[in-house]
Amino acid sequence: MKISIERGALLRAVARAQSVVERRNTIPILANVLIEAEGDEATFRATDLDIEVVDKAPAKVERAGSTTVNAVTFHEIVRKLPDGALVQLTDDGASGRMNVEAGRSNFALATLPKQDFPVMTSTEYSSNFKVAAPVLRRLFDKAKFAISTEETRYYLNGVYMHVADGEDGQVLRCVATDGHRLARIDAPLPEGADGMPGVIVPRKAVGELRKLLDDDDMEIAVSVSDTKVRFATNEITLTSKVIDGTFPDYTRVIPQGNTRKLEVDAADFARAVDRVATVSSERSRAVKLQLDEDRLILSVNAPDAGNAEEELVVAYSDERLEIGFNAKYLLEIASQVDRENAVFLFNSSGDPTLMREGSDMSAVYVVMPMRV
Amino acid sequence: MKISIERGALLRAVARAQSVVERRNTIPILANVLIEAEGDEATFRATDLDIEVVDKAPAKVERAGSTTVNAVTFHEIVRKLPDGALVQLTDDGASGRMNVEAGRSNFALATLPKQDFPVMTSTEYSSNFKVAAPVLRRLFDKAKFAISTEETRYYLNGVYMHVADGEDGQVLRCVATDGHRLARIDAPLPEGADGMPGVIVPRKAVGELRKLLDDDDMEIAVSVSDTKVRFATNEITLTSKVIDGTFPDYTRVIPQGNTRKLEVDAADFARAVDRVATVSSERSRAVKLQLDEDRLILSVNAPDAGNAEEELVVAYSDERLEIGFNAKYLLEIASQVDRENAVFLFNSSGDPTLMREGSDMSAVYVVMPMRV
Repeated sequence: MKISIERGALLRAVARAQSVVERRNTIPILANVLIEAEGDEATFRATDLDIEVVDKAPAKVERAGSTTVNAVTFHEIVRKLPDGALVQLTDDGASGRMNVEAGRSNFALATLPKQDFPVMTSTEYSSNFKVAAPVLRRLFDKAKFAISTEETRYYLNGVYMHVADGEDGQVLRCVATDGHRLARIDAPLPEGADGMPGVIVPRKAVGELRKLLDDDDMEIAVSVSDTKVRFATNEITLTSKVIDGTFPDYTRVIPQGNTRKLEVDAADFARAVDRVATVSSERSRAVKLQLDEDRLILSVNAPDAGNAEEELVVAYSDERLEIGFNAKYLLEIASQVDRENAVFLFNSSGDPTLMREGSDMSAVYVVMPMRV
Repeated sequence: MKISIERGALLRAVARAQSVVERRNTIPILANVLIEAEGDEATFRATDLDIEVVDKAPAKVERAGSTTVNAVTFHEIVRKLPDGALVQLTDDGASGRMNVEAGRSNFALATLPKQDFPVMTSTEYSSNFKVAAPVLRRLFDKAKFAISTEETRYYLNGVYMHVADGEDGQVLRCVATDGHRLARIDAPLPEGADGMPGVIVPRKAVGELRKLLDDDDMEIAVSVSDTKVRFATNEITLTSKVIDGTFPDYTRVIPQGNTRKLEVDAADFARAVDRVATVSSERSRAVKLQLDEDRLILSVNAPDAGNAEEELVVAYSDERLEIGFNAKYLLEIASQVDRENAVFLFNSSGDPTLMREGSDMSAVYVVMPMRV
């Protein structure tokens, strides 16, 4: 293999690869990136056996071929090369080294045989559709905070992407929950997505996917099978196994009959929750909400450290209510609101509470109360 | 005690206090800040028994008095209050709580008796002088990277500030070393500093001092005794015990007879060292320097990972030399150079090497070689 490649393009591709590679590997080849050069491009492939990312970059290929080198070291080297440099990669296939040359810099990196690299098996995808990057970004960004980290409930360790019945027909829906709170985000169903099997996209894949979604003009090709999901742009293909489990029936968790409505400026609310929570150093800090005619009093009582109270002017016209929540959960939910006021719908102090943005039903959050 | 104080001034003072407080305390009162209000100002005092910081802020004192509250919690609260808020602090002396009020926010923080707060005993300072902030900043900034972290050599765990004989008469000098490298930084002797006892300023005090030195127009009042050192601006007084030990005779470590001179662009040199060091993941990475007529080859050889080589055009006219250094040490020393080329003076590959900026002798560095 002998290729020349512009440093910027190389850096982007290798950065993506090294972020998929797990830092602690018992299998040496999994620390490596597979480089394959042919035609007028080079592909860079990395995997942790659950996720695979393949990144293409334009290259001048003098001699086609392939090899594997340590992804983290290679990334560090490329990162430190001067901007605009032309990088030459050479592997004679015999020395066990890949040479990296740029200007007066010369590196020889240990290689591992490309045959040992575990390329993910290809799959028949039953559904293929396209989604604009901002739509996919919203679906996952607003849901992912609720992903569970409990390994025993492995089927909650991801975002459940599926087709569901929304208010006005079918929608593409992302749901995440950890049993304490839940996020349910809808988007219009893309053409070709109907009949798509519901899949649980694991947390790490959600994180890697996020890196493909910064460009507002980008269209993402999504492919789904029972066992895998694939997200692709022209340059990058991210494939992930989906979590092999059944996502619980979340619809029963979403309260339908909550009628006591509180409307509050989300940013003011979040700041006030953050402030009153300061007096308690406990991990699960309970914030008490006292609701009265157009008035909300937030309070925290930490016997050792002290207590805190803050009053907010709100819209509330139902009867008096006292209800407690984990401060962190309230903060996370309030910070999902970006356009309008936060609307909370309560039932009693022991029942799950619903939160949405204004009257928009396409993003709905549920949070369980705490006794205070 | 009952005072009103502007949030910005309060935040600055409390931020300083909480940074001195140790996070893990077995003595509860050491987690607290002592607030004293009298006349038209409030002082905020915090200590870890080795360092004490006292910060004054203008305040409207309705009722003089004093109390102590948890510094970290109080800081967090003030930080989260809206910018421009007027904060009222009230302690009735009986309830065991200090009230913090700002707008619609209300906090009651647990207090501890002010009598228990360990105020640092006052000291007779034998030397008092003034130094411009940028001068003090340079003295400590360029020396501190060489401070030892080995607790057994406690007398190296700080910067040795003393009066010494420089090239053109007496200077104020800061020296730090960890046995592998050494920094010796000089400044013109301030009026009143002659006869000052040499003191070892501990690492943490150096860090706290740094926060007082950002304002180029500031003059710092320095006071030194055998056991303490004090740095003061109009608002802030930082007092620190000095390390009770004898700083070793560093003058013998600084090579006098090194004649083989290398001149190199410091930034280019640092970047090249950084790049070639990438191939080795070991903690003490050895970089080999091969010097020849106006040519420097930097190389690293890591049998497992690969090797790296980079050539630099330099000014060197002595005989061929090969010498190895710890990459981290070379990088840190090269990054001290900010105005001119780095000048290295070598003797043999086994001898300590001297580095300075151009022909400036007021900042001199020594680094021990490694066998490569």
